[in-house]
Amino acid sequence: VKEPAQRPPMGNLITLLTDFGWNGGYVAVCEAVIASVAPAARVLHLCHEIGTGDVRAGAMVLRRVIPFCPQCVHLAVIDPDVGMDRRPLALTVKRGDILIGPDNGLLLPAAEILGGVAEAWLLDAARVRHESGLATTIPSSTFHGRDLFAPAAALVCAGLAVSLIATPADPLSLVHPSPPVWHATTDGVLAEVMEIDRFGNVELAVRFDALAPSPLITPGDSFSLEIQGKDLPKWKARVVETFGQLQPGELGLLRDSWGHVALALNGTSAAEFLSVKAGMTIQLTADKGVS
Amino acid sequence: VKEPAQRPPMGNLITLLTDFGWNGGYVAVCEAVIASVAPAARVLHLCHEIGTGDVRAGAMVLRRVIPFCPQCVHLAVIDPDVGMDRRPLALTVKRGDILIGPDNGLLLPAAEILGGVAEAWLLDAARVRHESGLATTIPSSTFHGRDLFAPAAALVCAGLAVSLIATPADPLSLVHPSPPVWHATTDGVLAEVMEIDRFGNVELAVRFDALAPSPLITPGDSFSLEIQGKDLPKWKARVVETFGQLQPGELGLLRDSWGHVALALNGTSAAEFLSVKAGMTIQLTADKGVS
Amino acid sequence: VKEPAQRPPMGNLITLLTDFGWNGGYVAVCEAVIASVAPAARVLHLCHEIGTGDVRAGAMVLRRVIPFCPQCVHLAVIDPDVGMDRRPLALTVKRGDILIGPDNGLLLPAAEILGGVAEAWLLDAARVRHESGLATTIPSSTFHGRDLFAPAAALVCAGLAVSLIATPADPLSLVHPSPPVWHATTDGVLAEVMEIDRFGNVELAVRFDALAPSPLITPGDSFSLEIQGKDLPKWKARVVETFGQLQPGELGLLRDSWGHVALALNGTSAAEFLSVKAGMTIQLTADKGVS
Repeated sequence: VKEPAQRPPMGNLITLLTDFGWNGGYVAVCEAVIASVAPAARVLHLCHEIGTGDVRAGAMVLRRVIPFCPQCVHLAVIDPDVGMDRRPLALTVKRGDILIGPDNGLLLPAAEILGGVAEAWLLDAARVRHESGLATTIPSSTFHGRDLFAPAAALVCAGLAVSLIATPADPLSLVHPSPPVWHATTDGVLAEVMEIDRFGNVELAVRFDALAPSPLITPGDSFSLEIQGKDLPKWKARVVETFGQLQPGELGLLRDSWGHVALALNGTSAAEFLSVKAGMTIQLTADKGVS
Repeated sequence: VKEPAQRPPMGNLITLLTDFGWNGGYVAVCEAVIASVAPAARVLHLCHEIGTGDVRAGAMVLRRVIPFCPQCVHLAVIDPDVGMDRRPLALTVKRGDILIGPDNGLLLPAAEILGGVAEAWLLDAARVRHESGLATTIPSSTFHGRDLFAPAAALVCAGLAVSLIATPADPLSLVHPSPPVWHATTDGVLAEVMEIDRFGNVELAVRFDALAPSPLITPGDSFSLEIQGKDLPKWKARVVETFGQLQPGELGLLRDSWGHVALALNGTSAAEFLSVKAGMTIQLTADKGVS
Repeated sequence: VKEPAQRPPMGNLITLLTDFGWNGGYVAVCEAVIASVAPAARVLHLCHEIGTGDVRAGAMVLRRVIPFCPQCVHLAVIDPDVGMDRRPLALTVKRGDILIGPDNGLLLPAAEILGGVAEAWLLDAARVRHESGLATTIPSSTFHGRDLFAPAAALVCAGLAVSLIATPADPLSLVHPSPPVWHATTDGVLAEVMEIDRFGNVELAVRFDALAPSPLITPGDSFSLEIQGKDLPKWKARVVETFGQLQPGELGLLRDSWGHVALALNGTSAAEFLSVKAGMTIQLTADKGVS
C-alpha cells in the first residue's frame, strides 16, 4: 500500500461520476467501499445526476472536467449493461491517470483528452474481490459500481499494480461512444444540443473555434438560428463574450467555459425561451454584412 | 484526542444521513460543527434526500449501506420529535461502530446488522456542549442535528469516551421502527414497496431468498403480480439476473443489489409503467408450470 | 506553502457555496482546481442549490452557516456579472477567516457576522493564474469560479499571502446587498419570506427577538397573520418552541434554528398550506388578551 509521500503526483484522490443520483445511498455505498479498502483515499464527486444510462452525457462531463483534475484515479459508472458481457476496464493514460469503469464508451473521450490510452486492462472480478478482502461476500449482478469498480479503484489508488487485478486488453478493441453530432454548412453549422445547464444556457456539440469558416467571428457578429423540426420563427443571436453584455431579452451566442458554442440570455433561461432540449438540432447561419 | 494512528480501525470517518436536503446549508452546518470540534474528522455523506420525517426509510438506507462502511461513527438525524421528550442516543454495536441519533427507531436496524447493540447511552446535552466548546451558545429547540448530535459525533470520533458525555440506558428500552410489511401466501408473497430508485426499479420489502417456498426460483420462472387496491390487469414478471436480460417492454423480477426482490424494466422505469409508489402493496404469485 | 501544523487554527478547509447546482460538473471542476493547486485542501460544500443569480439568498445562507465553521477560507460564487466590471474580492475578517468571491454583496453579511472586514483586496487574475500554474491556459469570460476564484482560494488556503495575488481596496467601497425587508408595526411586524426549507417551514426576514415590542412573547401567545396581496382569510399562529408541540393542522410560530421567526406545521408543509413563497410579505399582529 502506497504512502501519499511516495507517489505525490497521484495523490490519494478518486474522482467519481455516476448516474445513481444522491438518493438511496447508491453513491455513498461506493464511497464506503472505497473508505473500507483504501482508508486514505478521498472521493471527489464529479456528478451523479447524469441521465440514467446516458453514457454519452456522462462521457462528455467526464471529458471536460478531467483535464482540471490532478493526476489520479477516475471512477465512472454509467452501466446499463451491468451483469451482461460488457467488459470492466482499467485504462492507464499518457498523463498518468488511471480510469476505471465499463467498456461502453464512457471512459474513452476522457482518456483521449489526457493524451490517449497507454494501456488497457480488463478487471478480473475474482482478483479484485480477493485483494480488497471482499472475497467471501457475494457480488451482485446489478451493481458492479459497488462490487467491482469501486474496490478496484480503491486498490489502485492505494498503490496496487493494475496488473495484479486485471489482464491486458487491446486498446483498439475498446468500445467508442457515438460522437456528438455537428457538421459545417456553407455559411454556418448544424449542431446537436449537448446540454442545458442550470442557468438555461444551451450548449451545442460544436467548438466555438469551428464555428466561423474565415475570418474568425468577433463580438458583434450575429447568427440566425433555426431549430430543426420546429416550425418556429428564426431567432437572431449576437456574438458576445459574457452574459452581462446582453440586453434584457436579447439572445446571445458565446464561447462557453468549455470552449463550445452556447446560446444564452442574461439572467434567464435561453432553453426555456427557445423551447429546446438536449438532443435537438440547431442550425446557425452567419448573417452576412451584419458584423 | 485520539491520533488516527492510535485507533486505525475506527479511522476518522463520520457517516451522515439526514432528511435535510442539500439546500439551505442544513447539512453543511452539521459538517461545519464537526470540522470545528474534530478537525481531523471526515464526513461521508450517506443520503440527505430521505422523505422528511420518514424514519423507516432512513432506517432502511442506513441499514443497507452501513455493512459496507469501515468501523466508524455513524450520525443519523431524522428527527420529527426534536425538542420533545424523545431521547438522544449513542449506541455502541458489537462490530465496534458508534451510532448517534434520536431514539425513534432510526438506528436500530443498522445496529442489528452490525451484530446488535453492545451498549446504549443517552446523550447529555450539557456535557456534549461543554466538551465541544459550545457551552456559551444557546442550543435551538428545533435543530439537534447541529446543536447536539453533530458535536457528539465529532467528540466521539476524536476519541472521547462516550461515558463522558452520556449516561447508560437499557438497550431493551430503545424504540423500534415499525418493520417493513410482507407475508408469505400459499403460492407467493404479498409485500410493501419500500423504494423506487432513480432508475424506476421497484424494491419490495421482502428478501429474494424468502420469495420461493421450495424449490428456489430460478431464472426463467415467472410471477404474476397484482397491485393491491388497483383495478388493473395482472402483469407477468420474468425472473432474471440483470436488466440486460429483459426484452424491451418486458417486466422482470430480480434479486436487487441489497438482496431484495425488485421489479424492473430494461432502460426505463418499472415504477412509472406500473404506476406504483413506495408504501403500496404488491402480491406476487408463482406461475405454476411456467418455469 | 504552509504546513497545516504551522497554522493550526486555519486548517486546510475551504467552504464552497455556489448557484451552480450539482449537475454538469461545474461544482466538481472548482473542487478539481482546488485539488490541483492545493492538494492538502479539503472542500466543505455549503450549498450549491441557491436560486441562479440570487445573491441575497446566497449571502443569507453564507452568513448563517459561517459562524459554525472553523476559521478557514470561504469561497462563494454567485456571479451574474461574471466577465463584466464587477470586482473580484478577497476579504480578511476580524475572526481571521478569508472570504473570496465577487464584489456584489455576497460576502459582506458573512464578513460582518465574523467581526467585520479587516482588509479588502482585489484579486489580480494574472497573478492568481501565474501562482497557481494556470498561466498558460486561457481563462474563460463566463466561469471565474473555476478560473479565478477557486485557484485564489486554493493558493490562500495553501498559505500564500493575499498580498501576492491581490491589490488593496477600500473596505468602504464594497458593494452591499439589499437587506431583507421587515419593519415593526404598532402591534407586530411586517416581514419578507426569506426561505422555504425542505420541510415547508416559512422563515421570515425578522429575528425572533425583534418580534415582540414588550414584554417578550412567550409560548402560548398567538399572532394573526395576513399575506400581503392575497385575499385570503387571516390565519392564527400559536407561539411554540418546537414542531411537536403543535396539534395536527395547527399553525405555529417559533424561533427557528437561525434565530428567525418561522411559521410551521407539525409534519407537513406550512408553505403549501399558506401558499407562500420566498419574497412574499407577511404581516404578523399580536392577538391582545389571548396570551
